[in-house]
Amino acid sequence: MNATEELADDKPWVELAEALREEDQEAASSLLANMSGEEQRFAMAHLSGEQQSDLTTLLTPDDAADLLEHLPDVQAADILEDMAPAEAADVVEELEDEVRAEVIREMGDSESEAVLAELDDQTEAEEIRDICSHEWDTAAALMNRSYAFFNDQLTVDEVLSKLGEDAEEYSDLDVQYVYIVDEQHVLQGVLRLRDLVLTPRNRRVADIMIREPLSASAEASFDELCTLFEGKSYVGLPVTDPDGKLVGVVTSKALREATAEHQTEDYLHSAGILGGEELRSMPMLSRCGRRLAWLGPNILLNLLAASVIASHEETLAAVIALAVFLPMVSDMSGCSGNQAVAVSIRELTLGLLRPTEFLRILFKEGILGVINGLVVGVVLAIVAAVWKDNLWLGLVVGAALALNTILSVLLGGMVPLLLKRLKVDPALASGPILTTCTDMCGFFLVLGLASQVLERLV
Amino acid sequence: MNATEELADDKPWVELAEALREEDQEAASSLLANMSGEEQRFAMAHLSGEQQSDLTTLLTPDDAADLLEHLPDVQAADILEDMAPAEAADVVEELEDEVRAEVIREMGDSESEAVLAELDDQTEAEEIRDICSHEWDTAAALMNRSYAFFNDQLTVDEVLSKLGEDAEEYSDLDVQYVYIVDEQHVLQGVLRLRDLVLTPRNRRVADIMIREPLSASAEASFDELCTLFEGKSYVGLPVTDPDGKLVGVVTSKALREATAEHQTEDYLHSAGILGGEELRSMPMLSRCGRRLAWLGPNILLNLLAASVIASHEETLAAVIALAVFLPMVSDMSGCSGNQAVAVSIRELTLGLLRPTEFLRILFKEGILGVINGLVVGVVLAIVAAVWKDNLWLGLVVGAALALNTILSVLLGGMVPLLLKRLKVDPALASGPILTTCTDMCGFFLVLGLASQVLERLV
Repeated sequence: MNATEELADDKPWVELAEALREEDQEAASSLLANMSGEEQRFAMAHLSGEQQSDLTTLLTPDDAADLLEHLPDVQAADILEDMAPAEAADVVEELEDEVRAEVIREMGDSESEAVLAELDDQTEAEEIRDICSHEWDTAAALMNRSYAFFNDQLTVDEVLSKLGEDAEEYSDLDVQYVYIVDEQHVLQGVLRLRDLVLTPRNRRVADIMIREPLSASAEASFDELCTLFEGKSYVGLPVTDPDGKLVGVVTSKALREATAEHQTEDYLHSAGILGGEELRSMPMLSRCGRRLAWLGPNILLNLLAASVIASHEETLAAVIALAVFLPMVSDMSGCSGNQAVAVSIRELTLGLLRPTEFLRILFKEGILGVINGLVVGVVLAIVAAVWKDNLWLGLVVGAALALNTILSVLLGGMVPLLLKRLKVDPALASGPILTTCTDMCGFFLVLGLASQVLERLV
Repeated sequence: MNATEELADDKPWVELAEALREEDQEAASSLLANMSGEEQRFAMAHLSGEQQSDLTTLLTPDDAADLLEHLPDVQAADILEDMAPAEAADVVEELEDEVRAEVIREMGDSESEAVLAELDDQTEAEEIRDICSHEWDTAAALMNRSYAFFNDQLTVDEVLSKLGEDAEEYSDLDVQYVYIVDEQHVLQGVLRLRDLVLTPRNRRVADIMIREPLSASAEASFDELCTLFEGKSYVGLPVTDPDGKLVGVVTSKALREATAEHQTEDYLHSAGILGGEELRSMPMLSRCGRRLAWLGPNILLNLLAASVIASHEETLAAVIALAVFLPMVSDMSGCSGNQAVAVSIRELTLGLLRPTEFLRILFKEGILGVINGLVVGVVLAIVAAVWKDNLWLGLVVGAALALNTILSVLLGGMVPLLLKRLKVDPALASGPILTTCTDMCGFFLVLGLASQVLERLV
């Protein structure tokens, strides 16, 4: 392979951009057809937003849908928003069922409505509207609305024949259970495909189905669904309306994907990325704005912490060496506090800790804080005393770090519980709250203790 | 419900501890039998390590296994380690297949060997040893070693009959595909249960199976498995040895669980929790030690940053107000850098960014850094100038924050790529590296710029 080929291989988007410039639909289609889904995603991430939607418009709706299915939902939504509604609707019609609503949900309200209004199948449009009207992680939004169901009067043989006749129709469904309903579509039982195969053909399905199966209401929240699935190996859980009628099926796959999405959201929030995924192919100003939305409140919190230093400037002026240790004390105790935050968030997630158990944190983190506080405090005390050749300076910063570590692990352990009770996302708010408190207390402890023994430090 | 009942309800472990004190096996069993998996987990988290293993020993092996299956693997492993090997082996024998190896893996080497040596079925023990000898996220460790397979000479009817005859045996397997092999157990094809049901009974399975199916080698890494599954809706992927013989099946469920575990590990690492899950029911000293293992290197990095302040003490002594803004500049740019870290880690995970694309980061984060740096710099400049009534002071800290923000987002964007290339976990090391660099540069910029215009600041 020569250098040029290597370059082209590394930059698959270059040829795509070329085909786009020449409006060569065939070339673009065949380039994409030769890429794996991963390569398509990589290539698209390197085109500008405008190029992305031009390319999608250039392709046939079918090819365009294939492409969008490989992109993160938020990117697919951005591309559709930039297309003419009629053209976007053609693409949306070709998207797979499970992707369609998720992508529409990521679009702005007016943009998605414009596209939905253009769909040929307005029943489908109405269904998507309904899905999007529910929170993304509730049963109503996560459930499949197509599923295999049969009347409870049928025999095993009749059901197997029907499955055979309509094989085409069922091939899109992930048929592992079939649902047994009465005339009014009220759920009567669940039948595993396996049991169907392994039973004499003349039995009635009502005799071999699992009766009174566990089901969720359409309004069930993500947490409720997790509790229903927890510890069980269901592949799917039927969803019923208040009259007991079957309206859909939440699969364990959908629930696991939702769990992964929650974890991703937690991660992004804890790092100060709000409003969902940020991709570097998004418009620069919107990226700047979203990041500033997080930095703004942080400036205020930082000013609050800095005001503690400002109010002790005289002490600091007398012992300038203290300034060296101020950021160290606040940073180190911040680290300790973050560890406690992570353990609390994990224990809450795993169901090992309830949001009311402040006393447990006080005990478990309190002892740990005393031990770890002593260790890091003594280390810093020795370092400071030797470095600045002043035992009292060592004592002041060491004691401040030890005390602030205790405080910080206690706070770090409790803040997620408090936020959970207040229904605020712990991953989002624990960090800034903790940092501000440990900064303020750390500065106060160093400068406050120093002012008490000022004559020994000078 | 009166207050006492409420209390007992809130503290399900109190009655368990009571049954334990009285060595009342029946009471303990029936208490646990009346709890959901979630409640069992919650109750166990509130017993001491000793109580946990005493309780497990008290129960029948079957009940004990049921209990351990509801606990985090690491907790189940700790409990087994504390039991006598022979008793632990009785419990291990009752654990579900998929849990067994995962729990053994979490145990210390000598402890797990002691238990494995006591297993009645030494073939089973050998298999667990083999699983544990592979990295937990490779195909060999993730795959099911039991699966439904049939010879390629059979007819549909013969396969269906065999499935029926051995229904008992297959009921433990998640049979959705059956695998078709030749006499030498070399994989020939994959057959969906659905196709089996929907095909005339006299056809040969070799005619309707999917030929040359995608398969993974037993050595396939987690990343390779993700690539194989990516964009496809397989429920399982066959795993073959170098001769093409079928050795197991990796399910999409196993892969999704591994993905979730990787995300959890990333989260814990980024918060400074090393060596896997920390639960507050673990021994205090081990918890302290593990957290200190992370704090230790951080003290050194903090000292490095503090030395920059120490080398500018004269400037600081001349303009003590600067000390107020030092932590602000380093904290704020740290926040900006962390945002860039999160976006890079996400883009790497989603396959939108390759570890070689430093130029892309330079461009995409560079522009963003200039814009956001200007915004936060101007804000801080105004605040500082007004607060301290000194325009030059505002200029110094504002410029320092602006420059340090640019540097920090560039570093934050690039460090995960660099670590990925060096095969170091980005979630673990990005934070400390970034913080140290932005602290050092931030302190240097504030104090260095100040020293240049010192006469205007005093």
